[in-house]
Amino acid sequence: MRPNGRAPEQMRPITITRHYTAHAEGSVLIEFGQTKVLCNASVNEGVPRFLKGKGQGWITAEYGMLPRSTHSRMNREAASGKQGGRTLEIQRLIGRALRAAVDLTQLGEYTITLDCDVIQADGGTRTAAITGACVALVDALRWMQERKQLKTDPLKFMVAAISVGVHEGQAICDLEYVEDSAAETDMNVVMTSTGKLIEVQGTAEGEPFSEEELVTLLGLAKGGIAELITAQQAALAT
Amino acid sequence: MRPNGRAPEQMRPITITRHYTAHAEGSVLIEFGQTKVLCNASVNEGVPRFLKGKGQGWITAEYGMLPRSTHSRMNREAASGKQGGRTLEIQRLIGRALRAAVDLTQLGEYTITLDCDVIQADGGTRTAAITGACVALVDALRWMQERKQLKTDPLKFMVAAISVGVHEGQAICDLEYVEDSAAETDMNVVMTSTGKLIEVQGTAEGEPFSEEELVTLLGLAKGGIAELITAQQAALAT
Amino acid sequence: MRPNGRAPEQMRPITITRHYTAHAEGSVLIEFGQTKVLCNASVNEGVPRFLKGKGQGWITAEYGMLPRSTHSRMNREAASGKQGGRTLEIQRLIGRALRAAVDLTQLGEYTITLDCDVIQADGGTRTAAITGACVALVDALRWMQERKQLKTDPLKFMVAAISVGVHEGQAICDLEYVEDSAAETDMNVVMTSTGKLIEVQGTAEGEPFSEEELVTLLGLAKGGIAELITAQQAALAT
Amino acid sequence: MRPNGRAPEQMRPITITRHYTAHAEGSVLIEFGQTKVLCNASVNEGVPRFLKGKGQGWITAEYGMLPRSTHSRMNREAASGKQGGRTLEIQRLIGRALRAAVDLTQLGEYTITLDCDVIQADGGTRTAAITGACVALVDALRWMQERKQLKTDPLKFMVAAISVGVHEGQAICDLEYVEDSAAETDMNVVMTSTGKLIEVQGTAEGEPFSEEELVTLLGLAKGGIAELITAQQAALAT
Amino acid sequence: MRPNGRAPEQMRPITITRHYTAHAEGSVLIEFGQTKVLCNASVNEGVPRFLKGKGQGWITAEYGMLPRSTHSRMNREAASGKQGGRTLEIQRLIGRALRAAVDLTQLGEYTITLDCDVIQADGGTRTAAITGACVALVDALRWMQERKQLKTDPLKFMVAAISVGVHEGQAICDLEYVEDSAAETDMNVVMTSTGKLIEVQGTAEGEPFSEEELVTLLGLAKGGIAELITAQQAALAT
Amino acid sequence: MRPNGRAPEQMRPITITRHYTAHAEGSVLIEFGQTKVLCNASVNEGVPRFLKGKGQGWITAEYGMLPRSTHSRMNREAASGKQGGRTLEIQRLIGRALRAAVDLTQLGEYTITLDCDVIQADGGTRTAAITGACVALVDALRWMQERKQLKTDPLKFMVAAISVGVHEGQAICDLEYVEDSAAETDMNVVMTSTGKLIEVQGTAEGEPFSEEELVTLLGLAKGGIAELITAQQAALAT
Repeated sequence: MRPNGRAPEQMRPITITRHYTAHAEGSVLIEFGQTKVLCNASVNEGVPRFLKGKGQGWITAEYGMLPRSTHSRMNREAASGKQGGRTLEIQRLIGRALRAAVDLTQLGEYTITLDCDVIQADGGTRTAAITGACVALVDALRWMQERKQLKTDPLKFMVAAISVGVHEGQAICDLEYVEDSAAETDMNVVMTSTGKLIEVQGTAEGEPFSEEELVTLLGLAKGGIAELITAQQAALAT
Repeated sequence: MRPNGRAPEQMRPITITRHYTAHAEGSVLIEFGQTKVLCNASVNEGVPRFLKGKGQGWITAEYGMLPRSTHSRMNREAASGKQGGRTLEIQRLIGRALRAAVDLTQLGEYTITLDCDVIQADGGTRTAAITGACVALVDALRWMQERKQLKTDPLKFMVAAISVGVHEGQAICDLEYVEDSAAETDMNVVMTSTGKLIEVQGTAEGEPFSEEELVTLLGLAKGGIAELITAQQAALAT
Repeated sequence: MRPNGRAPEQMRPITITRHYTAHAEGSVLIEFGQTKVLCNASVNEGVPRFLKGKGQGWITAEYGMLPRSTHSRMNREAASGKQGGRTLEIQRLIGRALRAAVDLTQLGEYTITLDCDVIQADGGTRTAAITGACVALVDALRWMQERKQLKTDPLKFMVAAISVGVHEGQAICDLEYVEDSAAETDMNVVMTSTGKLIEVQGTAEGEPFSEEELVTLLGLAKGGIAELITAQQAALAT
Repeated sequence: MRPNGRAPEQMRPITITRHYTAHAEGSVLIEFGQTKVLCNASVNEGVPRFLKGKGQGWITAEYGMLPRSTHSRMNREAASGKQGGRTLEIQRLIGRALRAAVDLTQLGEYTITLDCDVIQADGGTRTAAITGACVALVDALRWMQERKQLKTDPLKFMVAAISVGVHEGQAICDLEYVEDSAAETDMNVVMTSTGKLIEVQGTAEGEPFSEEELVTLLGLAKGGIAELITAQQAALAT
Repeated sequence: MRPNGRAPEQMRPITITRHYTAHAEGSVLIEFGQTKVLCNASVNEGVPRFLKGKGQGWITAEYGMLPRSTHSRMNREAASGKQGGRTLEIQRLIGRALRAAVDLTQLGEYTITLDCDVIQADGGTRTAAITGACVALVDALRWMQERKQLKTDPLKFMVAAISVGVHEGQAICDLEYVEDSAAETDMNVVMTSTGKLIEVQGTAEGEPFSEEELVTLLGLAKGGIAELITAQQAALAT
Repeated sequence: MRPNGRAPEQMRPITITRHYTAHAEGSVLIEFGQTKVLCNASVNEGVPRFLKGKGQGWITAEYGMLPRSTHSRMNREAASGKQGGRTLEIQRLIGRALRAAVDLTQLGEYTITLDCDVIQADGGTRTAAITGACVALVDALRWMQERKQLKTDPLKFMVAAISVGVHEGQAICDLEYVEDSAAETDMNVVMTSTGKLIEVQGTAEGEPFSEEELVTLLGLAKGGIAELITAQQAALAT
């Protein structure tokens, strides 16, 4: 039995609040149950040095956790003087996922930075971040369109992400912290609104897993992501 | 005329939301108009090395701004590898203010860390942080009392803080960003619920100021802080 | 047509040289074609702080590239003062893969560090590192057994890793640099000698990919890893 | 009774030695009793990036303590790899104070850096630094005038600073270390030669203080600063 | 009696392998007995800022030790976040030695970086690095000549280096680790193929030494360096 | 002709001022002409970790230059976040030189830190630092003897250091900055009061040098160091 009596394939309640803060070109608070991530999209003219003069844009992401977003207080990365490996890994993942969603040539020489800051953590922060950042990205692109900074819509499709895993021998979707920390297998999946895969990261935390388990988990992920895409589209329609 | 037609001595609307996040022993979102700061209090056993064996506790603070809490995006301090001088100065101020409010001997060998993270900035983030952190601190002390970790209530009084300044020749209270960035004189005042001063930091941004101006500004600060103390007590009474 | 006329499922020549350097408890130079990685295993008494007194051991990994292991010279991470995100991501992956291969309780309170340093890079450095580090790990465990530091053999199975990807529409195995840098999809797979999965990391570099493509790639990976396991066992038998 | 039998309002002996080192455009050793601070002013062409093309100059300060300027040896900040919060706070204060004294538009596109290094510390290092740096600044401006780099004298007034505080219930001026470390209230005041305030920083170290105490302390500060301005002018007249 | 029965003036076997890795413009593995250092030369257009527009080139060096090149594992400098004093000292020495060998004006506005990475350490790594780097440098200059990037050969002479020392009262040449770590006096000597001195660094590790001892050691060094120069020339002739 | 008409073997005027600052156990300002270095010795109980329990003491040194000790302002190392290679190299040299002068076993489990800070630079700062630090060290040892922290005098001999070099074809002693920056050969020599060598560091800045030149320079150094030892002893006798 999962916490709160969830069925194995059942997601936690999803909430997407747009325009959450006032200054960002896109600002989304996304909640997967008790996990809350603020995703702010910032539009800036210019591109990183390695892209200068290539006539294309860039999308990048940064990720952070507030020190007390977690059960016990974590060190503040700004104070310890560097971002940890987990942080860098997650923000690289978010960046790759969102770059896949956009035709960077149509974006023009702009950089969009997605800041994903975890206000409260209860498992699945990176997947919530990707899902929320995509909505913030769409708001930023709309903001650019209103200012005539874009000739066409560079968005190719929406992207969303979910964690799936094997916990006490059962494949489950959208793990919360108590499940995640005891999972035998843990997989994060990023998919498009067209049903294709952007990223699959599966890890055996305890025993190694079989191809069949991987396929089962992928199936669960598909269902969850379809639900997330629906929630994204509903939020963007209001 | 001030933005939104405020009178010189008039504060912005104050909102104090307790239990804003789930994990912290005290968690307060404080809003001074459009300025929103999340203040989380974390209780940990033990004290820093320089206090070991002295039979007293410690209170410290850390301050940060989300990169897009501001009009244009700031660099993330965790990514740039160090906290800037302004950040360090503010978190030292917050720590001093809250230590003044507590009898550290009665606290016992515990450390309470106040994490003040700016979600949205519109002037006065450090004064909002102090005011909100004091409420979070009280919640953390209550939490400790419930667990019998305290024999007596170590709180000596509430503390609150406000910014006052001279803008276009007029002394005003609780400056928002457009006022703050153009102020001739800028002063942050921390006071107790007993009407005494904890900290006064006045700076001539343009022309130097006279002792009379300082006294006028102090008077404005007193009024604002009385209002903040009332808001703190109302929040804690619910 | 692949470079050197390789068939899609064909691996590059694999060379595993044990006892490559003199000081390490396990020292392996592994070559996947032109990719050459030196994997040194160091045994030390004691465990990291978070494991103290739990009666188990620890396995960790560090990864680095010599500045001129690559086509154009990279900055030396020691000189720039931090390890980049890619480096941290890879060394976390290597560590997880090798921890999965060992019963840490049977290891006792020892730490084994796998240093994987790329002497020459031509694609697949992380998979070569995992495959070579596993051999170095076995040599280190044998060294411990000779010194009676182990009561039982804590190795659960061998692990090996391979990269697979889609390049010019074709699924291929063991990508070299020119293929890797132009691949549409890129997947790193870590498997056990028992045919199970430890880690799957698939990324759409260009277009998103389908579940079918993922399954095809997994099939290619299985074949390659079987070959690697054979090479590991042959090397260890000499 | 104060150490050395000083009266409450009595300053320590002030010594200002100009041209203390050979290379700097302005070089002043200032002594407040046993506190000795070397203040070097360096003139450089150009301004920081955020001021480029605005036709104005910039004044900035850096502060440091020699490791054994203090009773017990402090860590060398260059070795520990960062400047502490106190250091940054003080050098920001020195920079603000001296910028207030100069019409930056008349300075032209030059940057003057004030390096304030504490040779020996006995309380009041930041106020000695401001007072001495102002003399070094004047020497640097004179040096620029001799080279026709200035059309007019950009100095608006002299600035000087003093610490005042409440110690054993008594308001005193120019605290030395044994007084400072036991003071109930501590206030640093920066004033101009025209009798106006540049900066007031008052802190309750023990019990909170009243507005009356603040006004008393300001009065003491005024007297001390008048004496410092006289000493500056005497030094500059020789 | 020295280890392996070497005579006091006898060098360890010298091996110089050119074209050791594939990408660098010069790539040499040099072995002094069990000491193995990989020296890669990288040619890049442009010069450091302080040389821009002066019509000359630059030669610089970086040095590192693989963490398990030594008896017990050293910390990885990239992970600890800075290069230690010994590392910086050695790479400065290598850079000076090789700059002395080249007419930088004839080099044109190119920078050649010598990366010297210790694969296995057994004493004398800095001298092996200088000796090997000089061969890699010659290969890089030849590579530039083939591409017509040089009008003349900027090499003035070969340089090589050897360590000499006093161990158990006896002056010996080319110390290995067990000798080096117990030497009373330790001296590193860099010389040219024309028999002149580039650098002499002698240190009393235990008792101070006399001028006579210094002259004796210099004599030993001369003999060793002549042998090294011969080995360099033989390697370059093939 | 040398600046100020000095003869080739002639030193600049040497001044050694003991008890220069108030807090350090030994505090010496040493001047070699216009070069001024403050050398403070700090005595602390305990030794670094690698010496714990070995019953011996430790001597270490740190070196720094005030930003405007030089002709044009240097960056402050504390602000740039690390000590440069030259700084580390010099402080390692100072530490080695002073450890050679002391029987660390007789020192007992104390650490003496020599802080050498350059107030004004005009060539020869490292040699002045060593020479001055030795006097400060003697004062610190005397301070320990007065407190009965030492049973015997652990000083084996005095050490002093001088720079010699070849400038415009002439061997000269005690180079000032204009000579040093144009020298063909530059050599720093550390010697004992017993006439033995502790360290010899000779570098060809332009053309390589011969053994004969080295011997000539050593002879010059001997004369200069004898003079320095006399000055040290005279200072310590007062």
